[in-house]
Order: sequence, then C-alpha cells, then structure tokens
Amino acid sequence: MRWSEIGGQDCSVARTLSVVGERWTMLILRESFRGTRRFEDFQERTGAARPVLSERLRSLCDDGVLERRPYSNHPDRFEYRLTAKGLDLYPVIVSLLRWGDRWMDEGNGPPMVLRHRDCGAVMVPELACPACGAAVGARDVEVVTSAPAVA
Amino acid sequence: MRWSEIGGQDCSVARTLSVVGERWTMLILRESFRGTRRFEDFQERTGAARPVLSERLRSLCDDGVLERRPYSNHPDRFEYRLTAKGLDLYPVIVSLLRWGDRWMDEGNGPPMVLRHRDCGAVMVPELACPACGAAVGARDVEVVTSAPAVA
Repeated sequence: MRWSEIGGQDCSVARTLSVVGERWTMLILRESFRGTRRFEDFQERTGAARPVLSERLRSLCDDGVLERRPYSNHPDRFEYRLTAKGLDLYPVIVSLLRWGDRWMDEGNGPPMVLRHRDCGAVMVPELACPACGAAVGARDVEVVTSAPAVA
Repeated sequence: MRWSEIGGQDCSVARTLSVVGERWTMLILRESFRGTRRFEDFQERTGAARPVLSERLRSLCDDGVLERRPYSNHPDRFEYRLTAKGLDLYPVIVSLLRWGDRWMDEGNGPPMVLRHRDCGAVMVPELACPACGAAVGARDVEVVTSAPAVA
C-alpha cells in the first residue's frame, strides 16, 4: 500500500495521519500553538525550507486546520491561524511534548513548562477518563469494537 | 535545516518526532497497542511494504520503544513488544484516534470504541489537569517558560 492510500483506511489514526502525519507539519502546528502566525516566523522557528513550509501551510489550509487571513494590503500579507479543527489537535501536540520531556530530555529538564490558567497549577496535562476522572494509560483501556485495520 | 538534524532541537515535540514522527511508524505503534506482535501480522494490518516495515521495526527497537524477543527456535522467530517507553506513547495514539473520530469520520461513526476497565465507562480519554482534574484544551494552558524552538 502506498502512503497516499492510507487516508482511506477505516481507522481514525490513519485518517488523522493523512492530515498531520508529516514531521514538518507537526512542527508547524507546534509553532501555531505557541502563537506563530506569519510565514517568516514559521520559517525561522521550524527551520523548514521555504518551499516545504509553503506547501505544508497550503495543505493545512486545504484540510481546514489552518485559516489564511490577510493582515496587510500594502503589500498583501497573510497570516495563518488555527481553526476550531486545528485547535482540537492540542492533545496530540501536548502528548508528543510530554513523552519527549519524559524519555528524551537528555538531562536538561523540560524546556517548556505549562500552567493551567484556571487553577494556576504548573502541570503536564494527562489522559483521564471523562466519566470517573481517573488517569488512564494503555493498560486501563480496552477496545470494545474495532474495525479491520486495513479496509 | 534537514530533518535528520531535528532531533537536536531543544524542543520535546521535535525530539519525540525524531523517534515516532514517521507515518508508518505511527501505524506500527497503533498495531502494537492493539496487540500485534509478529512481523507478518504487522505487515497485513498496516499494509507497509516488507523492507519499510523491517526498517521501522529495527529503528523502534534501537530507540527502546519496542523490544525484540524470540518466541520460537525452529525456525528462529521473533516478536516485537512495547517497552515501558513504548507503552507511554499511548496518549499520542489515543489523541490521534480521538481527533480522527471527531473530524474525519466521514459519517461512519468511530470505528474503534474504548472502555475504561476500571469504571466500565465507554469513553474517549481526554486531556485533564492532574492538579484539579478539569479537562484542558489549548486555551486553558499557558507556557510559563519556553526555550527557543531552534537551537
């Protein structure tokens, strides 16, 4: 199977990866969540080559994850902002961040420290069961029904 | 910057992506969390070509995410099992799953239904603040300190 066919798999992980499963794309999203909106800033902060960045931004707009908005007419300039669909990718980015902090910090400690605005705690968000509130990991969850991985 | 340099970025998202930021790799992990252990089963369930699968499995073992264990001597056969480091990637996979279910289900409903073993609820794990227990999204969290994205 070619990667281009993977979006057709009857699996939500595969379908999500067909939109965000590219490494530069994830770094662009990381920057979006840090407030980056402009092409030059994305370029500086991700290190992506301009043609790569340009293609990835267009693709994220096509998929409805980012929205391209004019912010100047002289000359024409655009910025890229997360849509509701894009903002909802936050758990993906936080989960990547959390794992990197835990397993790949090279002894430097986490470079990004997060605070919950509402209660003020410095914390790392964790996965929890919305019914009972307990933290859940791989061993705490079972798959009830599951479609075949390959359609 | 080349992708190969990205693991050196002072950012946990980038470092995590240097290990798991490849789409076949994510699908291999998805299968691991569904209980797949053997090469032939990974191949059938991900659709990856054999050389690609072989390379990705080796790489995941080198990074300590999977462990290669013999399960037969006649002939020599190996299986691939998640380590503690690998099991801790569960939030990444669940977050990808959840987003795909919400935004890309094409009207078919979520193909994978999860149950919390402990309380029995059919649910989708969500990100929560471990201090106060509230669900948290992008707007609820602020970055307190942050290293530059590019080292």
